[in-house]
Amino acid sequence: MFQSFDAATTPDQGPPRLAALRRHMEADGLDAVLVPRADRFQGEYVAPADARLEWLTGFTGSAGFAVVTTSDCALFVDGRYTVQARAQADAEIDIVPWPKTKLHEWLADRPSIRTVAYDPWLHTVSQIETLATPLERKGVALRAVPNPVDAVWPDRPAPPDAPAMPYPAEHAGATGAEKRARIAGILRDAGHAAAVLTQPDSICWLLNLRGGDVPRIPVVHAMAVIHDDGRVDLDVAPGKVAGVDLDAEVTVRPLGDAIADITGTVRIDPATCPMRIKGLLDEAEISVEAGDDPCALPKARKTPAELDGARAAHLRDGAAMCRFLAWLDRQAPGAFTEIDAVRALEGFRRQTNALRDISFDTIAGSGPNGAIVHYRVTEGSDRAVSPGLLLVDSGGQYLDGTTDITRTIAIGEPPEEARAIFTSVLRGMIAVSRARFPQGTAGRDLDPLARQHLRAEGLDFDHGTGHGVGAYLSVHEGPARISRLGEVPLEPGMILSNEPGYYREGAFGIRIENLIVVAPAEAEAGREFMGFETLTLAPIDLRLVDPGALPRAERAWLDAYHARVAREIAPLLDGPDADWLARATRAL
Amino acid sequence: MFQSFDAATTPDQGPPRLAALRRHMEADGLDAVLVPRADRFQGEYVAPADARLEWLTGFTGSAGFAVVTTSDCALFVDGRYTVQARAQADAEIDIVPWPKTKLHEWLADRPSIRTVAYDPWLHTVSQIETLATPLERKGVALRAVPNPVDAVWPDRPAPPDAPAMPYPAEHAGATGAEKRARIAGILRDAGHAAAVLTQPDSICWLLNLRGGDVPRIPVVHAMAVIHDDGRVDLDVAPGKVAGVDLDAEVTVRPLGDAIADITGTVRIDPATCPMRIKGLLDEAEISVEAGDDPCALPKARKTPAELDGARAAHLRDGAAMCRFLAWLDRQAPGAFTEIDAVRALEGFRRQTNALRDISFDTIAGSGPNGAIVHYRVTEGSDRAVSPGLLLVDSGGQYLDGTTDITRTIAIGEPPEEARAIFTSVLRGMIAVSRARFPQGTAGRDLDPLARQHLRAEGLDFDHGTGHGVGAYLSVHEGPARISRLGEVPLEPGMILSNEPGYYREGAFGIRIENLIVVAPAEAEAGREFMGFETLTLAPIDLRLVDPGALPRAERAWLDAYHARVAREIAPLLDGPDADWLARATRAL
Repeated sequence: MFQSFDAATTPDQGPPRLAALRRHMEADGLDAVLVPRADRFQGEYVAPADARLEWLTGFTGSAGFAVVTTSDCALFVDGRYTVQARAQADAEIDIVPWPKTKLHEWLADRPSIRTVAYDPWLHTVSQIETLATPLERKGVALRAVPNPVDAVWPDRPAPPDAPAMPYPAEHAGATGAEKRARIAGILRDAGHAAAVLTQPDSICWLLNLRGGDVPRIPVVHAMAVIHDDGRVDLDVAPGKVAGVDLDAEVTVRPLGDAIADITGTVRIDPATCPMRIKGLLDEAEISVEAGDDPCALPKARKTPAELDGARAAHLRDGAAMCRFLAWLDRQAPGAFTEIDAVRALEGFRRQTNALRDISFDTIAGSGPNGAIVHYRVTEGSDRAVSPGLLLVDSGGQYLDGTTDITRTIAIGEPPEEARAIFTSVLRGMIAVSRARFPQGTAGRDLDPLARQHLRAEGLDFDHGTGHGVGAYLSVHEGPARISRLGEVPLEPGMILSNEPGYYREGAFGIRIENLIVVAPAEAEAGREFMGFETLTLAPIDLRLVDPGALPRAERAWLDAYHARVAREIAPLLDGPDADWLARATRAL
Repeated sequence: MFQSFDAATTPDQGPPRLAALRRHMEADGLDAVLVPRADRFQGEYVAPADARLEWLTGFTGSAGFAVVTTSDCALFVDGRYTVQARAQADAEIDIVPWPKTKLHEWLADRPSIRTVAYDPWLHTVSQIETLATPLERKGVALRAVPNPVDAVWPDRPAPPDAPAMPYPAEHAGATGAEKRARIAGILRDAGHAAAVLTQPDSICWLLNLRGGDVPRIPVVHAMAVIHDDGRVDLDVAPGKVAGVDLDAEVTVRPLGDAIADITGTVRIDPATCPMRIKGLLDEAEISVEAGDDPCALPKARKTPAELDGARAAHLRDGAAMCRFLAWLDRQAPGAFTEIDAVRALEGFRRQTNALRDISFDTIAGSGPNGAIVHYRVTEGSDRAVSPGLLLVDSGGQYLDGTTDITRTIAIGEPPEEARAIFTSVLRGMIAVSRARFPQGTAGRDLDPLARQHLRAEGLDFDHGTGHGVGAYLSVHEGPARISRLGEVPLEPGMILSNEPGYYREGAFGIRIENLIVVAPAEAEAGREFMGFETLTLAPIDLRLVDPGALPRAERAWLDAYHARVAREIAPLLDGPDADWLARATRAL
């Protein structure tokens, strides 16, 4: 079982560890120390060795940071985590709503603090620039120091050392050499001698590698320099790549050595590059230019082989989802819990014999838990799945692709109001699925289509409509997304999620999510249009659809989608599951 | 009659005038001269004294510029004007597609040109900055000179001298003193001692003035400085305001004198401020900061009095439109022309006894002429209105408001395909009309709603969905608009057009346009939403609607709209017009 349901921390672990940190701060003359959740890779998951914020405060959320002074500890978290942080952290730790309250505002009440210490490996260039300006105005200096938490963490785990494995070029659709040549061309066009790569998924994509250093994302923790001739210096623990036959142009060596040899301008991505690397470049007097990670866009445009893999993964994953949905319908409402549902779903995915990992911890929210957008069930929060709505957001990591699907299921007789809202959410999901659009259209231009029917009723949802998805990499991948913030033009081959929702606090949550891929679409002469192909294959609960509220074309889309699901998934099911599928995919 | 139908120019007028300009250039040692269509106010209409491009080349379009060298003359126009420019200009004048070809690209083939002369009153700061950079890279200098066309234009008309009139505060909803105090507050908040205002509509709004210096827009040609204490220095021909009782804080004096007295930072809007004014400020060593025209946003947010005026103007204009549409239906297809339609429509508007001007030259395009987005009928282009579609885009200037409406009318039996497309266009128009949206939503976020149904069929239209509209001012008013370029958040009181369309070259054009105003809208607890109130009152041709393709909610919108048109307009009509209205507004 990949997913676990225990609370990993208890509030009482914090105070003695804070006390130890304060003794260290006093010895080193530090007024205040920043403890971010992030590791040096700025990813969603950290290895146990990097779980410093969790170790110090008990908070296990995926974003946030603490500031520790000799008298206070404040934990800055965003809206989705305030309740969880309060429950996990000891009472002596203040929970500060961020970004409403900024660090410099919190410090304004504590004028005795003149310096704030931070580990320059754990903060990006952009973060430090954003923090520094308002602090400097108040006469507070930021000071880079060796990590103060590591200094007082006696049994800190070792860094991860999972072996890397080659990712077959027949899945990737290109060899590492071909990809390195492409990125080198991008650098030459920009006049850059090299780029520092600090994103493990970019490096794994570039070198056709996969790994296991963190859960849920099959990456190798590594950093690299790619030169404008296609050579790569790879900074990775040599043991991890001992079993991999790296290309001759890929040399394993420390980043510092690689940087020292560069002549010419180096590109770094300030949004992800650790401040320490900027420091190394500055010390070596190397000219630096800010730019996007050069792998980000090529990685987002999936190759035909990656798309074939995604289709195969979604077929397999769709069959597992259908077995799960059929299983759900056989359970008596109230007689099983969210954890039972999560276990069953992971079980059906494991039965495919192809599951490498789940792509994120399954969200299974019954009733009011469905309204908590980033809910993750624990033994403590587990609820019986009683009549009402159950929201299940989950995905699998398969060698040929990454999946991510949300279905909201009627348990017993759902509330009448939920049916009207579900239909509005579905209409938004269908509007994006059916969308066609000219070149240059960005995700921002599609986001309103997903919201229009909810908004017509005075409703909305407070998250983006969709994110990019990797190819056996991170389920959340940039740079394109369907959101108010999505300014990157969509291009054929990009895989995105399409997941509008609606959340009524204390009552229920609704979300419907398919993965879709950008593809050329027909248009009248003189126009070049794109549209979406749907990858995800699983029925949408027709018991929650008001057919009278679905215009003809949208009903036709839903019927055609269900006919396709039946056609493609039925051969993979048998017995009662096949009967269930036939009923679940009936035409409206 | 406001509108005229003659071609104002002939191609043969150009060559002798170009020859005169070239003699002047030779005498003054000028390699090349820029001749823009714009006057110093950068507006859509120019007075006869400022119609330099038309005088020199014969081209009467509303945008473009010529470059004259000793051997060449190139007329740079955008896509909508290439055909018209070729027809109006002599063959010796090259028509250059702009912005596809940039000035510096055209000059690259003419290396002997080392300087390009321009009149710094007629080009904005932004324009000159955009032109200068690539020219300087090629070693070509821009040189400000007194206007070279004026030097060779013997019978150049006098500048306009229409008298200004006070605009009643009961229509404006605020006194000039109140507005000046508001703008002064905006300047103080920004740390600006003063702002230079170069937009006649901003100045007329600020001072509650209207005028008649150009057709279609009731403004006074003037420039001004507003100080952070609310005082205004007004640069205007004194005779024009002789009959107006200006506030004591408003002083008529030349701009140069006003500028010389400023101490502190001055705001200019580089997008509209003439380069010459930047020069005056620099010469006086005054610190300049770029910023938006401080009147633009307050002017766009209409007061309750302005909205009441707009409603009254639209009721009156709606009745005139209905008389026109009823008249149209009484004509035998093929027995009348576009000009007949334009004359009839202006006649019905004149019958209101309140028409001050039309708000732009009526576009009446029959059949293929409907596909020319900025078509303006002349005696030469006039077509019989035969079976098919007739597109009529028109508006009125009334003391209480400015109108702008487009209706596309079936003449005889329309082509079946046109009905399907008309319905898709209508669905986009209804989607915007019904839209509700949270605070912070910009026009860019609504534009896709207007296109989604056309795009689903592989169709689209190549203009924005809507523009801002003034209150007895310009029918095209910034800063908000519904378009890919509309980044200004919508705010209650803003009047916008909602005018999706479809154009099939050589065949027909479809556009449906209402004016709408942003208003607060209901939403669930915790959300603040806005929506639109529709101002325009005239039937949409039901003979072109496929009811089966209209989803329930959209059909309900259309029925409710027609019921409202019938209820509000019927009392203003009688006899056959009233009968026509009852039929035209029947429920689907």
